[in-house]
Amino acid sequence: MITGKNYIGNRLSGEGDKTHHTVNPKLNIENPTEFVEATPEELEEAVSLSEKAFQTYKKISGGKRAVFLNTIADEIDALGNELIQMYCAESGLPEGRAAGERGRTVFQLRAFAKMVRKDDWRQNVIDVGQPDRNPSPKPDLRKTSIPLGPVVVFAASNFPLAFSTAGGDTASALAAGCPVIIKSHAMHSGTGELVASAIIKAVKKTGMPNGVFSNITGRGRTVGQALVKHPKIKAVGFTGSIAGGRALFDLAAQRNEPIPVFTEMGSINPVVITSNALDSRAEEIATQYAGSITLGTGQFCTKPGLILTVESEWTQVFIKDLAKKTISIEAQCMLHPNIKDGYVENGNLVSQQKGVTVMGKIDTLLGENYAASQVNAVSGSDFISNPKMHSEVFGPFSLVVICKDEKELISAINHLEGQLTGTIMAEESDKETLGEVVDALQSRVGRIIFNGVPTGVEVSGAMTHGGPYPASSDSRFTSVGLEAIKRWVRPFTYQGWPKEMLPDYLQD
Amino acid sequence: MITGKNYIGNRLSGEGDKTHHTVNPKLNIENPTEFVEATPEELEEAVSLSEKAFQTYKKISGGKRAVFLNTIADEIDALGNELIQMYCAESGLPEGRAAGERGRTVFQLRAFAKMVRKDDWRQNVIDVGQPDRNPSPKPDLRKTSIPLGPVVVFAASNFPLAFSTAGGDTASALAAGCPVIIKSHAMHSGTGELVASAIIKAVKKTGMPNGVFSNITGRGRTVGQALVKHPKIKAVGFTGSIAGGRALFDLAAQRNEPIPVFTEMGSINPVVITSNALDSRAEEIATQYAGSITLGTGQFCTKPGLILTVESEWTQVFIKDLAKKTISIEAQCMLHPNIKDGYVENGNLVSQQKGVTVMGKIDTLLGENYAASQVNAVSGSDFISNPKMHSEVFGPFSLVVICKDEKELISAINHLEGQLTGTIMAEESDKETLGEVVDALQSRVGRIIFNGVPTGVEVSGAMTHGGPYPASSDSRFTSVGLEAIKRWVRPFTYQGWPKEMLPDYLQD
Repeated sequence: MITGKNYIGNRLSGEGDKTHHTVNPKLNIENPTEFVEATPEELEEAVSLSEKAFQTYKKISGGKRAVFLNTIADEIDALGNELIQMYCAESGLPEGRAAGERGRTVFQLRAFAKMVRKDDWRQNVIDVGQPDRNPSPKPDLRKTSIPLGPVVVFAASNFPLAFSTAGGDTASALAAGCPVIIKSHAMHSGTGELVASAIIKAVKKTGMPNGVFSNITGRGRTVGQALVKHPKIKAVGFTGSIAGGRALFDLAAQRNEPIPVFTEMGSINPVVITSNALDSRAEEIATQYAGSITLGTGQFCTKPGLILTVESEWTQVFIKDLAKKTISIEAQCMLHPNIKDGYVENGNLVSQQKGVTVMGKIDTLLGENYAASQVNAVSGSDFISNPKMHSEVFGPFSLVVICKDEKELISAINHLEGQLTGTIMAEESDKETLGEVVDALQSRVGRIIFNGVPTGVEVSGAMTHGGPYPASSDSRFTSVGLEAIKRWVRPFTYQGWPKEMLPDYLQD
Repeated sequence: MITGKNYIGNRLSGEGDKTHHTVNPKLNIENPTEFVEATPEELEEAVSLSEKAFQTYKKISGGKRAVFLNTIADEIDALGNELIQMYCAESGLPEGRAAGERGRTVFQLRAFAKMVRKDDWRQNVIDVGQPDRNPSPKPDLRKTSIPLGPVVVFAASNFPLAFSTAGGDTASALAAGCPVIIKSHAMHSGTGELVASAIIKAVKKTGMPNGVFSNITGRGRTVGQALVKHPKIKAVGFTGSIAGGRALFDLAAQRNEPIPVFTEMGSINPVVITSNALDSRAEEIATQYAGSITLGTGQFCTKPGLILTVESEWTQVFIKDLAKKTISIEAQCMLHPNIKDGYVENGNLVSQQKGVTVMGKIDTLLGENYAASQVNAVSGSDFISNPKMHSEVFGPFSLVVICKDEKELISAINHLEGQLTGTIMAEESDKETLGEVVDALQSRVGRIIFNGVPTGVEVSGAMTHGGPYPASSDSRFTSVGLEAIKRWVRPFTYQGWPKEMLPDYLQD
C-alpha cells in the first residue's frame, strides 16, 4: 500500500503541503498517488534519528548486519508483482527489465551481506610492538576501518531499483555500518516508497535501531540540499546529471566540515574501432553496437555515445549500417517527459553543430515520450574543435567521429573529459600497434573493454564504475561492486591497546 | 652549494625578481642566500615538464622506481653535514633532531622502494570470466591501481625533512608513479634546495624523465595557489595550518575538474586521564606529559594540547606538578619568528579566556625566538561553552580541563572538532567502565592510544595519521606509513583484455 508519505525512521509522516505525482510515461498521464514533500522539521527528525541510530548501529556485528541486509532482500522479493507494476508504471520500462533490476538489487544486498559476515573487508593491519627496540620502543599498532556516520543517498532516475532506495549505495553504506537517509527520486516515488517499506520491515524484524533508514520525498532541490548541508550528515552518494551532482559536490565542499561526495555523473563512453576490425566484421560490430546504443532506451550511464574510427574504405558502409540497424530497433518509451525533452534538446544541439551529419533517425514514434534513436557522423577536426559535441546526450544517441589518421583519433580522446569506460574493437593483428590508443584511453577512463560493449556493469570485486571527473567526482572509488563499501569508512588505528578492549578482528 | 634558484625539472632557474631570505631563529638574523620566487613562466614550464614526464614515468616498472627512491635516499645521506648545518640554521632545531629526521626521511624512501618492488600494493583483483554463464556471459575483469598524474606537495614548516621536499608525501607519490612538484617552504628554502639537488642527482643517475621532480620557491601564497589551480595538476599534499590548508582545499574544489587535496592541519590531541590513573601514578604521568608537551618545542601536530580529567583529590596536585615539570624543561627556540609570534598570540588568547588559570609559564628566555612553555587549567563547563579554547596553540602549551563528572568529560570530547589522536591514561580497574569515553574519542580521532603519548608517529602499515576534519581534509587516508600511497592512485579495470596486453601483475 502506497501512502505518499515519508519514512522518518520507522514512522510514516506527511506533514507538509508541497506535493507531487509521478508520471506514467507510456500513457503520458499522472499516477494517482499524491506524494508529500518532507518539511524541515521532518528532515531534522530523520537526521537526528539517523545520528542516534549510528551510535548503536556502528557497534552491531557484521553477522547481524548481514542478517539485516538479507532480510531487506527477502522483503523486496516479498513485494512481488506490486513492485514490478509500480516500477513499470513510473518508468515506462518493460516488466523483464523490472524483474532483472530487482534481481540485481537483491543480489547486491546479499553480496554485501556475505562480505560483512567476515571482517576482512576492513583491511585490518596488525603491526605488533617491540618494547625493546632501540633507540625507542616500537608501539603495537592495529589498524581497521570504521564507518563515517549517517549517509545521504540520492536515488537515480535511470535505475529505480539497483541505484536507488535499496541500491548499491544503500547496500554498501548499511554494510559499512552507516545509517542511510534516502532522497527518493521524484520520478519514481512510489517504487521508492515500496522498497522503503521493505527496508523498514527488515529494520523491525531484525531489531535494528529506529533511524538506521529514512526515506525522504520531494521534488526540486530544497530537500536534497538541506540534507547535504546538515552537520550530522557525513557522506553523500549520488547518481545523475553533471549539473545536479556538481551542485551537491559544491555544497558539501563549502560546509564548515567538508564531507565526501560520490557523484556518478555524465559519460559518453568512447569506443575506438580499428580499420582492421571494420574490415573483418563491420556488420557484426554494427549489430552489436546498435543493440548497446538502444539498450534501456539509451538511458544507461555506460551507453556508447561516441565511436571513433580512422577513415578507411569501410567507414561509410559501417556508419550507414550502424544507423540502419539502430533505427530498425523499435523505439522505446523514456523514463519521464522531462527526460524525453532533455533528449530532444541535447540531441538537436549536437546534430546542429557544424559538420555533423544525421546518418539515421527514427521518424515515427508510438507515443509522446518515446525516443527517436539517432546515429550521427562528424569529422575528427570538427569534433575536436567543438566541445558541444563532447557532452552526454542521455538516450539512444551516438556520434561516430571519422578521423583522418591515428594521431587525430588520439587527439580526439585527449580532448575528452573523464569517462566511466573506454572500449577498443580490434583484431589480433592490431594488438602491437594499440599502445598509444590504450594509453590515451587509460588516462580518461575507469574501465577499459576489449571487443565488447560498455553497457552491462558486472557486480564484481574487480569492477571499477567511476572515472576521472566528471564521470565521477572522486575517481578513487567505484560505485558498483564490493569495493564500493570503501567509500563509507575511514582508517582507524589502536595504539598500545589492551587485548581485551580490542575488537575480535584485531586480536592476534 | 646553495644557489637560491628553483629546479624546473633538472634545470636550475631563477628568472624572477621577488626574493626572500630564510631566518636563523636562534641568532634572530637572516641567512645569507637570496631565494628567487618562481615566475609564472617558470611554473608553467615545471607543470608542462611534469605532465610530459608522467607519460613516461607512469609506465616505469616498480623495480626501477625502487632504484630511483633508494638513490634519492643515498644522495640525501651523501649531503652529509652540509644538510645538517643548513637544517639547524633554518629551523633552530638541534643537530640530534636533524640527524633523526634525516634518518626517518631516508627510511621512508627505502620503505616505499621496498613496497613498490612488488605490485601487491596495487590491490589487484582478478575475477575470471565465465563465457558460458546464463543468462549472460560473465566478463573477465581485472582491477588494479594507476597513478593520478602530477602532484603538488607543500613542504611543512615543522618537519623540514620528513614532511617536506623528500618527505612522506613525495616518497609515496613518486612510489605510486606520480611526478612531484614541491612548493618549498619559505622558512627552510635552503634545506629544501639541498634535498632537491639530491633528488635531481638521483633523477639523472637512474635515467628518470626530466620533470619527474621540480622544486619551486616562493614566499606568500601566489605560487602555491597557481600550482593548485593548474589544470594539469591532479592532486595536492599539504601539512600546515587550518587556514592555509582550507584555502588550498577550497581552490581545488572550485576547479572545473576538482582534484583530491590531502591537507593535514590542526589538532589538539585530547588526552583523558582517569582518576584511578592519577591516584596510582600522577607523578609518572606528569613527567611523561611534560616531555611530550615540550618535545620539539611543542611543534608537533600530535602534541597533547588538551588534557581531560574528572576532578578528584589528586587533580590539583597533578596539574601543579605537570606545570612545574613542564616549565622546568629548558625553553627551546621555535622554528621562525612568525611561529614564535603566533605562539605568543594564540597562547595569550586562550590564557585570557574566562575561567582559565595559568598554572605555570616560563618567565626567562634565552633569546628572542624561544618559547615560554605553559600549562593552564579550566573547568569543564567553561571549556565546553567557549570554542576559543578548542583550537590548536602551536608550541609547548597545554590546557588541562577539570570536569565535574564523566558526563561532562564526554560532553567536552563531543564538543571538539576532528583530531589526529586521542589518548587514554587508565588503570586495569578502569577498563570495564571506559566504553563511553572510547566511543566519544573514536568518533573524533584517527588514532587512539592507551597509556602512552601521542607524539611519535611510527612509520608503519598500521599507522593512521589523519582524522576527521580539520585534523585532515580527507579522513579516509593516512599521510604517514605505507598506506599513504593510496592517496595518489585510482582503481582501473581491464575487461575482456587480451592476456598479452595485460600488465605482468594482472596475469593469471
